[in-house]
Amino acid sequence: MGQGAYRILQEAALRDYLAGLPDIAALLGGAPTAWSITEVGDGNLNLVFIVKGAGGGIAVKQALPYVRLVGESWPLPLSRAHYEYLALSRQAKLAPRLVPALLHHNETLALTVMELLEPHIIMRKGLVAGVQYPRFVDDITTFMARTLFFTSDLALAAAEKKEAIAAFAGNHALCKITEDLIFTDPYRIAEQNRWTAPYLDGLAASLCEDMELHVAISRLKLKFMASPEALLHGDLHTGSIMVTASETRVIDPEFAFFGPIGFDVGAVLANLLMAYFASAGHERAPGVRHEFEAWVLETVDQVWNEFARKFLELWRSEASGDAYPVSLFAGEKGAMRLEAERQAYMQRLFTDTVGFAAAKTIRRIFGLAHNIDFELIEDPRQRAVSEARAVRLARGMMVEAAAFRTVADVTGAARKLRDWQPELSG
Amino acid sequence: MGQGAYRILQEAALRDYLAGLPDIAALLGGAPTAWSITEVGDGNLNLVFIVKGAGGGIAVKQALPYVRLVGESWPLPLSRAHYEYLALSRQAKLAPRLVPALLHHNETLALTVMELLEPHIIMRKGLVAGVQYPRFVDDITTFMARTLFFTSDLALAAAEKKEAIAAFAGNHALCKITEDLIFTDPYRIAEQNRWTAPYLDGLAASLCEDMELHVAISRLKLKFMASPEALLHGDLHTGSIMVTASETRVIDPEFAFFGPIGFDVGAVLANLLMAYFASAGHERAPGVRHEFEAWVLETVDQVWNEFARKFLELWRSEASGDAYPVSLFAGEKGAMRLEAERQAYMQRLFTDTVGFAAAKTIRRIFGLAHNIDFELIEDPRQRAVSEARAVRLARGMMVEAAAFRTVADVTGAARKLRDWQPELSG
Repeated sequence: MGQGAYRILQEAALRDYLAGLPDIAALLGGAPTAWSITEVGDGNLNLVFIVKGAGGGIAVKQALPYVRLVGESWPLPLSRAHYEYLALSRQAKLAPRLVPALLHHNETLALTVMELLEPHIIMRKGLVAGVQYPRFVDDITTFMARTLFFTSDLALAAAEKKEAIAAFAGNHALCKITEDLIFTDPYRIAEQNRWTAPYLDGLAASLCEDMELHVAISRLKLKFMASPEALLHGDLHTGSIMVTASETRVIDPEFAFFGPIGFDVGAVLANLLMAYFASAGHERAPGVRHEFEAWVLETVDQVWNEFARKFLELWRSEASGDAYPVSLFAGEKGAMRLEAERQAYMQRLFTDTVGFAAAKTIRRIFGLAHNIDFELIEDPRQRAVSEARAVRLARGMMVEAAAFRTVADVTGAARKLRDWQPELSG
Repeated sequence: MGQGAYRILQEAALRDYLAGLPDIAALLGGAPTAWSITEVGDGNLNLVFIVKGAGGGIAVKQALPYVRLVGESWPLPLSRAHYEYLALSRQAKLAPRLVPALLHHNETLALTVMELLEPHIIMRKGLVAGVQYPRFVDDITTFMARTLFFTSDLALAAAEKKEAIAAFAGNHALCKITEDLIFTDPYRIAEQNRWTAPYLDGLAASLCEDMELHVAISRLKLKFMASPEALLHGDLHTGSIMVTASETRVIDPEFAFFGPIGFDVGAVLANLLMAYFASAGHERAPGVRHEFEAWVLETVDQVWNEFARKFLELWRSEASGDAYPVSLFAGEKGAMRLEAERQAYMQRLFTDTVGFAAAKTIRRIFGLAHNIDFELIEDPRQRAVSEARAVRLARGMMVEAAAFRTVADVTGAARKLRDWQPELSG
């Protein structure tokens, strides 16, 4: 197809473009002039349009050559749309029905057309509202176990793995955002940092002085940069998950690259834990969110436990990779020893997960990008209280990650902090 | 240059080819018909010619499309010559005078022309003869510290590092040789394995049953495959080092790729330790190699200690990478904490090094590729005794790598095994 050069497609141009795609036009149905086109992008980076016709709807995502949240002063390569497309294609094969269906991709325009997810909402919004999602544990753990296991050395031949790492190596501008905004800036004085002032001023300052924490975050940063264990989603928070009571879809894998497995798993746990600590701030009357909060913590437990169970099950039944070759673990004794090693591997992975979850929490409270779990708490003092509780847990998780032996250690610590009253500044 | 297709250049064709390269022809001097051309490749993979004219000499290396040691039944991509060239170019910048000068490279022919190293000999031959090399410690530790540090996350920006990893990802066929021959085959029944029979039959069988060892080697294999810490030489044994009393040159980096730093450092230590254990087998009269053996163990100590000192010194003075950002370790307290973390990093690296050194030892005694340190011991029983001592140390190093806290723990254990009498089979 003659694609021409990159240009930003606003409504009229987008309508013309889509009208020129027979399959898409047929799906939408009716005359192109009758299609409704609405820009709904509330993320930090891209344009997102919902297009509806008489026959159906689609979602259109176009990358901008800069960070939307900040503007043209912060350029960002369009190639991220290509990596998102690569990742989404692979996820669709590994975890069908857990990602939106891909309908069209134009690399030059950095534009992707996907299935419209309706009536799905961003999970984070549901969590703020106190909604429970009964499908979530099973779906997200299937998504993580399958996408992470099948792109790891446990499933891939070493040559395939190296080629796959190279295929995503060019997405380093997106990795750099993570390296800076998650693993560096919250721990130093940085212009883009912000927090609930004045209440958290003291805590923000203490983070910049806390050398144990700086060592811990630097080790995590190095692991993030130089441990290509599997193809990560790379931004797996509850704002990248769309849900209904009966469906879960993971969206927006533009940060995809080969990195440490615990980074994705930790992202899910961290965002649930933040929903838990934020919940007190959304209480309309004492105790009304008690059941929701219990569900959130139970979900944290189950997300790890089910993820670990499914990952191990895949390892036992689908280990076609070059790591831990079956031929070295023949016989009953070998099988037993390999099983013990699988458990040890999961324990190391859990320690990574705990550390990365802590990093994902702290950046949402002191870094550039915050989340509505906390931001929608109207009373800033109450918001600061919720945030301080989350930070207290996160600091312990980061500096003493290995002391959390099981996920129950994490949720138990969270529960104990539910009514803890921090000392605030100001 | 019109390169045409790949073809193997034997003497006549090589002469014509070199005559067509003005700079090379000028260096050699005189009429091309007067050049002497000798094939000297004693490695496992390639053709190597020494070409001499009235004015000077060169070395010419051409990759064959198969493993020379085995024949056409084991194909191997010519692209390895390209990766060798890439690695050698980078090493030449980082460690000038410690690698041969590059004079010409032809990617299509998989052919490289280099400075002729004369009167250098392969270090392993010198070690078999009991020769001490006073420059070796300083040179090899400079080579390792500089090539490894400056290609690590401590020196490179994350984006550069990812691009560099991708640039070497295609060398996976050479990595696969290592994965199979070092990290897998010696621990299972494999057709290509061989050992000093019948004396080591029992030990060979026990290796295949030793599940603790299988777990340890599998962890090392996974680290080899998925820890791109720095650009490795990838095959840094004493057969890849050419020496005189006053010079050291590292050659043959065709196994280069981004892997764990301890793999290169461990290779050097392992090959020195094997020279130590083999020495008893080369004794013409009791005690005549005593001084040499003391020098070898002292060299092991110094190689680690000097490498660590130089690597740390570079980290303190040239840390321009994205790992451990200096901005997180401001002030006296920060500087102290960062220094403690550097020491902890080196301790983890030492543990890796100990494990990889063990792996490099065991493969030379039970795998496909042996070395002349042991092979030139004429009496097979005596050879088996030396090998069994090396294996005993290596098994401990692999299974309890972290118990060796300093390199003196390693050389101390080696010294204790100098006269240990193993039980042999047969």
